[in-house]
Amino acid sequence: MNATRALGTVYLVGAGPGAPDLLTMRAVRLLERADIVFHDALVHPGTLAIAARAELVAVGKRCGKHSTAQRFINKRLVDAAQRHAVVVRLKGGDPMLFGRAQEEIDALDAAGVPWDIVPGVTAALAAAAEVGVSLTQRGVARSVAFATPRVGEGEQASDWVRSIAAADSGAIYMGVGQAATIAAALIAAGKAASTPIAVVENASLPQARTQFLTLAQLPQLDASAWSGPATILFGPQFASAARAAAPGVAETRELQQAHGKRTA
Amino acid sequence: MNATRALGTVYLVGAGPGAPDLLTMRAVRLLERADIVFHDALVHPGTLAIAARAELVAVGKRCGKHSTAQRFINKRLVDAAQRHAVVVRLKGGDPMLFGRAQEEIDALDAAGVPWDIVPGVTAALAAAAEVGVSLTQRGVARSVAFATPRVGEGEQASDWVRSIAAADSGAIYMGVGQAATIAAALIAAGKAASTPIAVVENASLPQARTQFLTLAQLPQLDASAWSGPATILFGPQFASAARAAAPGVAETRELQQAHGKRTA
Repeated sequence: MNATRALGTVYLVGAGPGAPDLLTMRAVRLLERADIVFHDALVHPGTLAIAARAELVAVGKRCGKHSTAQRFINKRLVDAAQRHAVVVRLKGGDPMLFGRAQEEIDALDAAGVPWDIVPGVTAALAAAAEVGVSLTQRGVARSVAFATPRVGEGEQASDWVRSIAAADSGAIYMGVGQAATIAAALIAAGKAASTPIAVVENASLPQARTQFLTLAQLPQLDASAWSGPATILFGPQFASAARAAAPGVAETRELQQAHGKRTA
Repeated sequence: MNATRALGTVYLVGAGPGAPDLLTMRAVRLLERADIVFHDALVHPGTLAIAARAELVAVGKRCGKHSTAQRFINKRLVDAAQRHAVVVRLKGGDPMLFGRAQEEIDALDAAGVPWDIVPGVTAALAAAAEVGVSLTQRGVARSVAFATPRVGEGEQASDWVRSIAAADSGAIYMGVGQAATIAAALIAAGKAASTPIAVVENASLPQARTQFLTLAQLPQLDASAWSGPATILFGPQFASAARAAAPGVAETRELQQAHGKRTA
């Protein structure tokens, strides 16, 4: 036996979109067994409470400090596997979609630490459930693109616009703070200014809010009023949901229920 | 009180990619309470077993018979809500992504039946977890497109090719039977013939299999050897996973473990 041999396994686990009961059963069982949990800043306290016997370590990153922070997280995961049997890296949504999982997988591989991935419910799907509008629809939207305008330190701005412009419908992650830039880029790429949009904040949580608008109206979105995690959905299918909503008003679940659009 | 007033609620629930423990907690609790469950053909028997007190009704559709079958399912959901408190419509993956949820939501709305959506883990994310390669990666793949070449009866072939060709990475659902057509269409749309591909069958289940190839090699895929639900993933990030695998061989979990790529 090698004294430096890894004893534990690191599980990269999707925490889902927010509501603790949207964790998978597999995630719940791992959290219950976990010795230590490294979690994103936005994970719900009710989700962290499931990890009753674990040491909890917040590893949220600040914008512009990405690279250093990620290398430090990688190192902490490798180190934790030397001391603990069950190490959980808990990420909002799904680890393999805008979760920066690859850097951690590669670091674990390089150190010979065994790992596994537990997929989760990604934010765009919870947002579609919140609005009650399917991301794909027969004859209306057969392709969906997911992208983010958010770019890490020292990284090239990516060509995300082209993929979103080419898809029938789509979801933009972490984009509310750049609403005007997104609208200008998509219109320049040929997306119609009349494209229906739904902005969904805190999808799956009781404080969820939705606002319907068009791509042309997107720059009017008041980013300071959207402090929770939000997803921008677009596609022709959001037009009918928009017609049922009060124009220009962020719709709470109570309003949706009053409109008879969803059960309690 | 109106005698025809709906008594029950219809829950459109994502069954996840296959493994019963990749259901969300919310889905499990609904299945435990369900009076009747209308389920897709491919839902795992272990998942159906959770609905211990429910009547189970398989509503799998056959290709080419879609429209009639969907109207019949819509009617059965509305009818069931008149007789049962908790009606579950259980769909593989997530209801809002290639799940034909909208037709059912619209039918329930038209009949005044209350409904709610429980999102699930979609197949592409389970496939990425199976391969151990993130769909998005900093500086490599910032946008992902999901599409299917599958078209219902009387429906126009959609422009799914353009969206997939424009994205950095992507997932094609229900495409293994049309591998040659997909490869030709994507190459004609400008995707490089050398684009790395991973075909993942039965993601999240013990019998999962993965084969790595390039877009140019995709037509060689023997569709008859892929009988389970399969997802075609593509993107530059699958090249390194392909290098670690045996060329041209479908890789089982045992092989992945032998390569030291994943824990048991």
